[in-house]
Formats: sequence, C-alpha cells, structure tokens
Amino acid sequence: MIMKNIKLTIEYDGTNYCGWQKQTGLKTVEEEVEKAIFKSTGKRVKLYASGRTDAGVHAYGQVANFRIESTIPGDRFIYPLNDKLPDDISVKKSEEVEDDFHSRYSAKSKTYRYLVYQSKIRSALLRNRAYHFSYELDIQKMKRALEYLVGRMDYSSFTPIKSNINKNIRTIYSADVFREAEYIVFEISGNGFLHNMVRIIVGTVLDIGNGHRRVEDMKDIIEKKDRLSAGKTVPAYGLYLKRVEY
Amino acid sequence: MIMKNIKLTIEYDGTNYCGWQKQTGLKTVEEEVEKAIFKSTGKRVKLYASGRTDAGVHAYGQVANFRIESTIPGDRFIYPLNDKLPDDISVKKSEEVEDDFHSRYSAKSKTYRYLVYQSKIRSALLRNRAYHFSYELDIQKMKRALEYLVGRMDYSSFTPIKSNINKNIRTIYSADVFREAEYIVFEISGNGFLHNMVRIIVGTVLDIGNGHRRVEDMKDIIEKKDRLSAGKTVPAYGLYLKRVEY
Repeated sequence: MIMKNIKLTIEYDGTNYCGWQKQTGLKTVEEEVEKAIFKSTGKRVKLYASGRTDAGVHAYGQVANFRIESTIPGDRFIYPLNDKLPDDISVKKSEEVEDDFHSRYSAKSKTYRYLVYQSKIRSALLRNRAYHFSYELDIQKMKRALEYLVGRMDYSSFTPIKSNINKNIRTIYSADVFREAEYIVFEISGNGFLHNMVRIIVGTVLDIGNGHRRVEDMKDIIEKKDRLSAGKTVPAYGLYLKRVEY
Repeated sequence: MIMKNIKLTIEYDGTNYCGWQKQTGLKTVEEEVEKAIFKSTGKRVKLYASGRTDAGVHAYGQVANFRIESTIPGDRFIYPLNDKLPDDISVKKSEEVEDDFHSRYSAKSKTYRYLVYQSKIRSALLRNRAYHFSYELDIQKMKRALEYLVGRMDYSSFTPIKSNINKNIRTIYSADVFREAEYIVFEISGNGFLHNMVRIIVGTVLDIGNGHRRVEDMKDIIEKKDRLSAGKTVPAYGLYLKRVEY
C-alpha cells in the first residue's frame, strides 16, 4: 500500500469543545477526529490543521490533513468518518492531495465569520450561535471602519499577545459587514490571524456601529498598537472559521 | 392591586427539555417559565399554554398566559423574566390582555414549521435544528401533495391516536414547502393539530418528494384514515411552533 496524504474539510459546533487542539483531559475536536480515523481504519494518525480554534468557536470549513497507508480512496474517507464522529462534528469533504500539502503551511488565506444578533430581546434558539447585541447598529459606519483594517499592517491593538517588533504584522484581504437572514455578519479574510484578532476587531467595530466611537477613530486605534486602545473581545460562540483557501 | 391577565410569547430551544408540559422529575419548559415568574414576582402562578409541545420540539412563538396581582406593567414582565430564564428559553413579548383571554381556547390558528436539511452529508451545526435528508427532493411535487391536505377533514392517517368517529377532524388553512437559506421549510397552519400530525405529514410528503410515492397517492392516504397508510414520523428536533394567532 502506498502512503496517502488525505485532506479533510470539517464542520463543527464548538459549543461543547475546549477548542480544536488536543489537551490532556479535555474534550477537543482534534481528538474526536483522530479517534474517528482510528475507529475507521485501525490506525493512529497525526492530524495537521490549518490552525487551532479556541473553546466555543465553530467551523464550517476547518481543514486538516493526515498521512495514512490505506486502500480507501481519498474521497471515501468521508463516509466511515461521519459514521464514527459525534453529531456536532461532520466531515464535509475528503480528498487525496499531493504529498507536500500541509493544512497550515500551504494555506493562502483564511476567512472568518462573526455573527451578531441585533435585537432588544435575546433569542433562545440563537444562543451559542450569535452574539446578542441590544443596541442599534449603523452598518454603513461599520463598513467604513472595517476598510481601515484592509492591507498589510501591525495588528497589535487587536490581540492580547504583546510582540517584538513586526511579529504582529499580517495582511487582511477583505473585511465586510452585511445583513443576512436574522444576522449581522462580519466576514474577514486574511493571510493569518493573531490570537483573538477577529473577536477584538468585531468588538471595536460594534463600538463604532452603535455610536460610542467615530469611524475615524479606527485609524488611531490601529496606530497605537496597544490592546487597550481597541474595544472588548466579543464571545467565542459568535465566531466561525468559514473557509481556508490554498 | 388588581388581577392582571398576562400573555407571554415564548421562544425556546426544545433540545434539552422533555417538552412543554410539567411532569414530575423531568425538565420542562413550563416549569422553567413558572419558576422565572416566581423569582421575578414572589408569586406562584398557573400557566395556560396554547398547547403542549413534545420533547425536542422548538418554538419561536409559543403563547402562554397567567393571572397575577402585580404593579408591574404588562409589557415590563419581559425584562425580569429574561433575566431569570435559562439561555435556551426567552420571552419575546409580554402584554396585558382581557380577562377572558385564554392561550388555548382563544386561539384561532397555529402555524408550525418543519426544517429539512437536504444534503448528502450531514451538518454538525444544524444537528437538533433540522432533519437531515440525504436524497433529492422535488419541491413542486411536495407542494402539490400538500394541497390535498388543505381543508376540513379527518386526519386519522396522520396521528397514532385512534379515535371515535369525527374526533380527528381538523381544518388546515394552508400547507406549503419552499427553500429558505440552507433549509427546505414546510409551513402548515391550521385550527388545531393532532398528536404527531405535522411530523407524520412531513414524513409522508418526503416520500413523495423523493419519488417513493406519487403525488396522487396522498388522496388514498387521507381516505384510508389509517396511520399505516402514511409515512414515517420525522424527528421532533426539526419541528417549530412558529406562531399562534388570536
């Protein structure tokens, strides 16, 4: 049998997990997927993901790959895996990829979504799915605020991790906000994201959307390179890793 | 203080409840709402709902009323109640109504939704929210099948409860199916529904939508007045009590 490199695209509801990455004694998505691969093939493999997601964060399209000697065609792993996985994790696609493909190092960009439910009254059915925000929001102002963030720059204001010079530089390709069904959706694509970066960006832009800060304040917030200049970190359960592009 | 009759419109995620109606030793929505009223007012009240919902069934707009001596204005009950209720139950509206209003007996019609997620691959994020159906569905055929059900008739084929003559007669005002976002949505309004009626109707119409039965078979199924002539009971977690009209 030849060694295959299998790429999985994985959806999960992060509510009941301590994030993606394996941690002794804690329930994680990574461990559940590795267990399902073991139950399906009898083999222990090491999974390489596009990146970790924090506790409570969801994914429509997390990507992870693993190497295995198996006669199962690449596009067929999906069936036994979905049988063995718990209900709140599903494999959306499996495929054999080139041997040098690596979910993290080969990634060109990632897209995150953050869902806000704007209403005076909270929604029981949207709990753990969207952040409930009670006050009015100006979508156009938030769009303009997000424009400041597009480009290559130091995003130190949007992460609690202090860094040596230049370690917090990333590129955001696009950042938008729009209404979709019952949600206000933030969608941000970039070549990489710092710890809590999307959640702090959304927290800051909500301050602008509800009038507590001005659109132009975004320029200062970025330039200060200081976490204290930005808004609060909105909850993990509104965040979704939507897609990883290669 | 005068006695007020308070009407609540309630949303809930039924996943973690043994239905609406109180049962000793079981977690129910009714009991949680009564407890929240007690915590908010110090008073024990009896709730009257538009009807019970089964274990796992959700609601956007369940209606329940109760009588209470209180200085709290009718439209203000919503705030303390939402503070005291668990996350998976929320009061969307509270209002004072006429003394003779009764959530069940005053109801003119009820509207249920049933959500189907049609895809070869199941969705982790839609578990407990929509019924996963793997096969192709013909929406137009399902629309035509539903038309047979509109009117006043004996729906004995769509309930496990056998009845004396005429006890299973109800009126369905409208029955439709359409695509909305990632779902195929069934929406049925009527003056009352038998036990499991919406879930058996949907199970039967899915058989027609995927070609296992013909549209015209619906006529026979209804006329037989026999549960065995209809399709299977689809799961509770796809069902939502959408609205009660008065």
